[in-house]
Amino acid sequence: MGRPRDPSRDDAIKLAALRVLAEAGYCGLTMDAVAATAGVGKATIYRRWASKGDLLLSVIDDATADQLTRPDTGCLREDLLVLLNSLAEVLAGPSGRASRTLLGALHHEPTLAEVFRQGPLARWQEAFTEVIDRAVDRRELRPGTGVWMAAEAGPGMLLQRWAVTGQPLDSAVVTVVVDELLLPLLRRC
Amino acid sequence: MGRPRDPSRDDAIKLAALRVLAEAGYCGLTMDAVAATAGVGKATIYRRWASKGDLLLSVIDDATADQLTRPDTGCLREDLLVLLNSLAEVLAGPSGRASRTLLGALHHEPTLAEVFRQGPLARWQEAFTEVIDRAVDRRELRPGTGVWMAAEAGPGMLLQRWAVTGQPLDSAVVTVVVDELLLPLLRRC
Repeated sequence: MGRPRDPSRDDAIKLAALRVLAEAGYCGLTMDAVAATAGVGKATIYRRWASKGDLLLSVIDDATADQLTRPDTGCLREDLLVLLNSLAEVLAGPSGRASRTLLGALHHEPTLAEVFRQGPLARWQEAFTEVIDRAVDRRELRPGTGVWMAAEAGPGMLLQRWAVTGQPLDSAVVTVVVDELLLPLLRRC
Repeated sequence: MGRPRDPSRDDAIKLAALRVLAEAGYCGLTMDAVAATAGVGKATIYRRWASKGDLLLSVIDDATADQLTRPDTGCLREDLLVLLNSLAEVLAGPSGRASRTLLGALHHEPTLAEVFRQGPLARWQEAFTEVIDRAVDRRELRPGTGVWMAAEAGPGMLLQRWAVTGQPLDSAVVTVVVDELLLPLLRRC
């Protein structure tokens, strides 16, 4: 926090964390392994992140901040397609895989869970709310109807495929979720 | 497999596994810790289960086999309420907490993932399909309409609360999911 840091070194450490995770899983993610893979000393990592959980969250937070598109196409269906495709891409990418290894640990580390909820989860909620609010402004939707249900059920289906069942999570599935689940829920009144 | 086993000892080992998990998480679940907690030798455990993954799956499988109710109330809405409340209870109980710690590991252990999908997941799918088929037989539903979407979206919402957001997972939520999500999806035609 207090001193200027070399951002390229930050990136190298984060990349190393992703690589270790992919090879060894969350249980195998140690600061030693990350330091060895990144070619830096352990103290260099601890100067930036207090624990492997903090480091992972930083990796995940970066990725969702960069990659979760906040669409404004002027059309609710298009906005939802862009938003959910972007979520599906984040989940399928390296930071999604990193988040997935965290799922089992979240419930043993309340601080981690809190940061996760305030970071990536809050960002999703904001992006979704923006899309809905604009659709209400354009009179495509009435306020209220089915909004929280849609905000939960849409990502819920994607997350279940990603975390549990391993079924495909591609743009064909996203289109079905938008057309058969979200739009009917949102337009019901 | 080949020799008669003392079922009370099996149960003691499974209970010990749950206790270690609750205290130390998946990364801290070692056969040593389970043996010490159960008060048995490690060989006794390995005679029954080849790995901690196998042991965990056995714990989880037991619980979903015993606890997932397969309702037949004669009414679709009642059946869905019983089924989803039973799922919510399994998730909230000790075997659900055990499953959750497995989520992060599933993707590094394909065999584990396969058994998980063929056990608890397949059992859910069967129970849901039975409920739907009977509703079709009673002419409460037409076949086909929104069934797979409902079968995925309902548990998806519950799983997301359980695995990611930590929001409540009680009978009030289940009632909303049945009335506002499942029944509208199933009855759309």
